Amino acid sequence: MQLNASQREQFDREGYLFFPSLFTSGEIKILTDEVPALYAQRRPENVREKSGDAVRTNFAAHLYSYPYAKLARHPRMVKPVEQLFGEPVYMHQFKINGKMAFDGDVWQWHQDYGTWKNDDLMPEARAMNVAIFLDEVNEFNGPLMFIPGSHTLGVLEAEHDLTTTSYPLWTINHDTIRKLVARGGIVAPKGPAGSMILFHGCLVHASTSNLSPWNRVSVYLSLCAVSNHIRRFKRPGYIAHRDFTPIECLPDDCLLKHYDVALPWKDRFNEPLREAS
Amino acid sequence: MQLNASQREQFDREGYLFFPSLFTSGEIKILTDEVPALYAQRRPENVREKSGDAVRTNFAAHLYSYPYAKLARHPRMVKPVEQLFGEPVYMHQFKINGKMAFDGDVWQWHQDYGTWKNDDLMPEARAMNVAIFLDEVNEFNGPLMFIPGSHTLGVLEAEHDLTTTSYPLWTINHDTIRKLVARGGIVAPKGPAGSMILFHGCLVHASTSNLSPWNRVSVYLSLCAVSNHIRRFKRPGYIAHRDFTPIECLPDDCLLKHYDVALPWKDRFNEPLREAS
Repeated sequence: MQLNASQREQFDREGYLFFPSLFTSGEIKILTDEVPALYAQRRPENVREKSGDAVRTNFAAHLYSYPYAKLARHPRMVKPVEQLFGEPVYMHQFKINGKMAFDGDVWQWHQDYGTWKNDDLMPEARAMNVAIFLDEVNEFNGPLMFIPGSHTLGVLEAEHDLTTTSYPLWTINHDTIRKLVARGGIVAPKGPAGSMILFHGCLVHASTSNLSPWNRVSVYLSLCAVSNHIRRFKRPGYIAHRDFTPIECLPDDCLLKHYDVALPWKDRFNEPLREAS
Repeated sequence: MQLNASQREQFDREGYLFFPSLFTSGEIKILTDEVPALYAQRRPENVREKSGDAVRTNFAAHLYSYPYAKLARHPRMVKPVEQLFGEPVYMHQFKINGKMAFDGDVWQWHQDYGTWKNDDLMPEARAMNVAIFLDEVNEFNGPLMFIPGSHTLGVLEAEHDLTTTSYPLWTINHDTIRKLVARGGIVAPKGPAGSMILFHGCLVHASTSNLSPWNRVSVYLSLCAVSNHIRRFKRPGYIAHRDFTPIECLPDDCLLKHYDVALPWKDRFNEPLREAS
């Protein structure tokens, strides 16, 4: 899978690319079938919603779940990012965000690179966000919203919001959002399970709460150019990874066939966790 | 303005009717220009959001604001409701809901008639909800969501939710919502300022939070058939009105021309309010 000139130009202008139905329903089922067991685990990698027990986000499943370990090496996802950066990439962050039916809470307006820069000392915004829909995303289940073109302004001033949701976030103030939206509007890509979005680390995004009876589970991961690896290990290793080994892709059929992959944190669940607090 | 047979049939089947751009932008401006001064008042009729100072809902403006007193007697709104009920109506409740940019919080899934029955002892579901858009409603500013056909099941079991938002609400449980949505889906009418929705007192509805930089202020009012007036005065009079006088409509141009209307609560702001607690 290679991006053509028009896609590369669109990415530069808008800050994102949308690939509806990039993965088949058979491939997605392999992934969704694992979610309940992952979310049921009591481990620091599961961050729950303020309102109760629903999982807001699960970290680093690619290190302890076989199907996600294969997804993390999928060429349909990794190759276009390598192409855009012109070098190999490593996995900086890997999340399965719940946005569960009825309980899924908002993610306030933010840029991801702000956090990577401030907390992790990542030198440049050369890490790509990837969203893969494990459920259909529609107008009612809290789709990801982007402000097109907002990535071109670099890192914007942000405030650390520790109270709105269960997960602290560097959020962008209302006046800035007003100006960015007046300039670029808002878009919310919607589509079937298996769709994928690539978006720039500086693209301003948010998502609203999910009041619908439909889960909106998505994999969000960040692929960082290897030369651009983080310089500080302030956040736990399951949030900001410290293994900068270039990803070696599996074949295109990897979700459906068996391939050997390492699962280094498979038994970590039962061990004392240094980083749990 | 009279409903035709097809509209009446649609209302019976779906539980709502949508009238895009029923009021002109000139008429709506008369109303929106009043909102900042109304929301600035410190009076019990203004209920603010949990998160801060933004107004979640303002009650009974038709009793102390001249443009809203005229809106409350507007034939384009009142006549179709009289037609559906076959008798005169009175104003049971009158709200200007903020759903303000960035701060507008959710309204959980609920039926209005559940509250009217339980708290106000309103005999039948013969009170009509009316929503009039003072701002454009789009997919990003928390549109009202309906489950079509859910009104046909009458009053559903509900639980009193006192914690989710700043306004207590009888809300419907998740299992019931799942079943209703499987049967009827979800719709969210969107359109320009000046659009109007009529919806049944038993129609299950909700709205999500507004993360966009666009206010989504709407007038929500309830017109009750006079013979069906409430029997108990448990809630404050500014929430559930106790004056059952049939509404006498003004002419169709009433928002743009001068007509004399009573404003009985105009000076109430400066008086001790028995019902404030």
